[in-house]
Amino acid sequence: MNEPKIGKLAVLIATMEEEELAVFKPKLETVQYCKGKAGSMNMQKVISSVETAAKRNGIIAEHVYRETHALYHAILEALQGVTRGQIAIGDMMRTVGLRFAVVRGKPYEREGEGEWIAVAFYGTIGAPVKGLEHETLGLGINHI
Amino acid sequence: MNEPKIGKLAVLIATMEEEELAVFKPKLETVQYCKGKAGSMNMQKVISSVETAAKRNGIIAEHVYRETHALYHAILEALQGVTRGQIAIGDMMRTVGLRFAVVRGKPYEREGEGEWIAVAFYGTIGAPVKGLEHETLGLGINHI
Amino acid sequence: MNEPKIGKLAVLIATMEEEELAVFKPKLETVQYCKGKAGSMNMQKVISSVETAAKRNGIIAEHVYRETHALYHAILEALQGVTRGQIAIGDMMRTVGLRFAVVRGKPYEREGEGEWIAVAFYGTIGAPVKGLEHETLGLGINHI
Amino acid sequence: MNEPKIGKLAVLIATMEEEELAVFKPKLETVQYCKGKAGSMNMQKVISSVETAAKRNGIIAEHVYRETHALYHAILEALQGVTRGQIAIGDMMRTVGLRFAVVRGKPYEREGEGEWIAVAFYGTIGAPVKGLEHETLGLGINHI
Amino acid sequence: MNEPKIGKLAVLIATMEEEELAVFKPKLETVQYCKGKAGSMNMQKVISSVETAAKRNGIIAEHVYRETHALYHAILEALQGVTRGQIAIGDMMRTVGLRFAVVRGKPYEREGEGEWIAVAFYGTIGAPVKGLEHETLGLGINHI
Amino acid sequence: MNEPKIGKLAVLIATMEEEELAVFKPKLETVQYCKGKAGSMNMQKVISSVETAAKRNGIIAEHVYRETHALYHAILEALQGVTRGQIAIGDMMRTVGLRFAVVRGKPYEREGEGEWIAVAFYGTIGAPVKGLEHETLGLGINHI
Repeated sequence: MNEPKIGKLAVLIATMEEEELAVFKPKLETVQYCKGKAGSMNMQKVISSVETAAKRNGIIAEHVYRETHALYHAILEALQGVTRGQIAIGDMMRTVGLRFAVVRGKPYEREGEGEWIAVAFYGTIGAPVKGLEHETLGLGINHI
Repeated sequence: MNEPKIGKLAVLIATMEEEELAVFKPKLETVQYCKGKAGSMNMQKVISSVETAAKRNGIIAEHVYRETHALYHAILEALQGVTRGQIAIGDMMRTVGLRFAVVRGKPYEREGEGEWIAVAFYGTIGAPVKGLEHETLGLGINHI
Repeated sequence: MNEPKIGKLAVLIATMEEEELAVFKPKLETVQYCKGKAGSMNMQKVISSVETAAKRNGIIAEHVYRETHALYHAILEALQGVTRGQIAIGDMMRTVGLRFAVVRGKPYEREGEGEWIAVAFYGTIGAPVKGLEHETLGLGINHI
Repeated sequence: MNEPKIGKLAVLIATMEEEELAVFKPKLETVQYCKGKAGSMNMQKVISSVETAAKRNGIIAEHVYRETHALYHAILEALQGVTRGQIAIGDMMRTVGLRFAVVRGKPYEREGEGEWIAVAFYGTIGAPVKGLEHETLGLGINHI
Repeated sequence: MNEPKIGKLAVLIATMEEEELAVFKPKLETVQYCKGKAGSMNMQKVISSVETAAKRNGIIAEHVYRETHALYHAILEALQGVTRGQIAIGDMMRTVGLRFAVVRGKPYEREGEGEWIAVAFYGTIGAPVKGLEHETLGLGINHI
Repeated sequence: MNEPKIGKLAVLIATMEEEELAVFKPKLETVQYCKGKAGSMNMQKVISSVETAAKRNGIIAEHVYRETHALYHAILEALQGVTRGQIAIGDMMRTVGLRFAVVRGKPYEREGEGEWIAVAFYGTIGAPVKGLEHETLGLGINHI
């Protein structure tokens, strides 16, 4: 495995509280990252929330399609974990407090491998009945 | 969200090194858990590894089908994250150092909700070409 | 195979007319069941219809998440049969006269296996063009 | 809905014992049908078993590709129900006593609609651990 | 492979400009075909556009369900290529200038094989962000 | 749409005979490309065939993971078209004379968008019964 482990870092940022994350600060300084919340249960809005956050925080370049394309597929992969392969019916599921993290870094020693991006989601998901949900998590990684 | 967060704990056990995990010991004492490694890239063997570990460590009862059934579907959900919705071609992907954690606990206050089980995988996955892989992670949760 | 066969019973209730079902009355008395119709072609409404019927008829407990969770996944499995693995585009398909049955019982001799739930759908499904459809059927089973 | 309901008939043939089926004999005389068993858990062998039975019993013409093509897609649709959308990992699941039925008939009054074919499976399916399984069922329909 | 290759012809009609297609005119005279555009990114509207065009141009009979059924499944197969197996989230993707072609012909020498239908799509597809997209293509074939 | 259309070129190379392709020579000179055949029906071997051809012909760099990663996902997307969303059971299908093309180029004017890669497959696919098959095609595109 490689260092920094951008996937693991994305997962820790998405799942941990500030104080729990403190011990990982040195490792977080070796990457670029941002985090945020996706309030809606609508897949399209979830995707937009992550893209907007990643662009506002300078994690990806706003007007370069290849960076958006890389992020988009990383988000889709992460949503497969969130919906456990049922991304098709993701809109039917009710997510509560879905948090996300985007991490960009160089996980490979070899210079030519360049930068990669990781997206992690963590929150709760439930059937359309209010008050009933359990945890869910997803991670996607792509070259950028 | 509920306490203990069995999904988050499963993910931390699967991703963290022993020393990183130390601070979560108090929370881990509120659940039953085990961890292990799945060496093969064969989905059927990965499933067997987790089932065997969960039974040997007394996380699920060996001869009760409903407990195996609950664990089995939690594993399948977690593998959807690992293969990012491509579980069908999981066997074609090469996993390296896939670690897993199984956590059983009572995440809901209400007594009637009883016990739930969480399964997390973390490792690297790659195309069939050796030496090329990136991180992957999956989480599945079920009532037991 | 086990007795009572809750899956077979659910399918018979969903597909048969009252008079055809008469001969199975003795077996039906060994389980709890309800039936109903899902008028809409919207997946979320279909799910709600089944959940509401199951709760109103006391097949599952209204305020226990683990029972709703069990039913929900049984419904999703049954809908995979109805949409033949295309649950994602279920909303695009036009179902006519979709009938459902929910059966709860103890299909295993061993006491520890406890109760299981079966959900069956039967009706017709078609492309979005009116008047053109063919039969469709699905069955899902879960521990409860 | 149309008469004869070839899908319902296929399901009844696959699920019922001889004596239960007796009352449906008049309806069965309006269609062509055959039934059989698929012993293996291997998807490719299951498909072959159904094709062979359908050809031996003259349900489809042996050397006409369009009839094999129609049957093949009906089988695949039915297997989506059996594996509940996880046909990809069907080979990993252990089926026990999987019975199938193939029914060919004219379900539409209008002559131009011609013949259609229905395939139903019924049996038990389980995780790779012996002795643990539950019922499963699938139905596929196609024009021929 | 067979002649005429209705799949290849459908793809050429969908991807080529009029002048590029000129050389294939002789082959196109051996089949029935039509082409059109699907402006919307809504899967249901895309399906309707193709069905309407095929009926208006007499490629399939308007009131025969088996022909609509054949076309419908060919469209769905082609859309799997367009969305690359993610047909479930096709509605979330933004298609620009999606062109389609429907070709009906007899690709097999043997008379009994009768007519088959091919549907091809070609255009660009993108994440929900305007201005960013790449090419996409899909082909579906069915007996009619 | 952009120029050169690397997706369209990949499809033309995969579907056309040498003489048909002649008119597109000027456009082909604006990109890097290779073509080949994948004899086997085994998905893993199909993937290997394309990767080997792309590396031998210098379309991607042999020892740079990010280029292999880009190609791998483009191949997977193309295979979704070939198997029409059933990549999971691709191994069960019998492909005959599957030809592939890999095209690398700069489809966007803006320099920052850099290079992209397109993979196209074309051939025939059939149920496991010999002699029965129809055309199939798939296209995948990725940034590199």
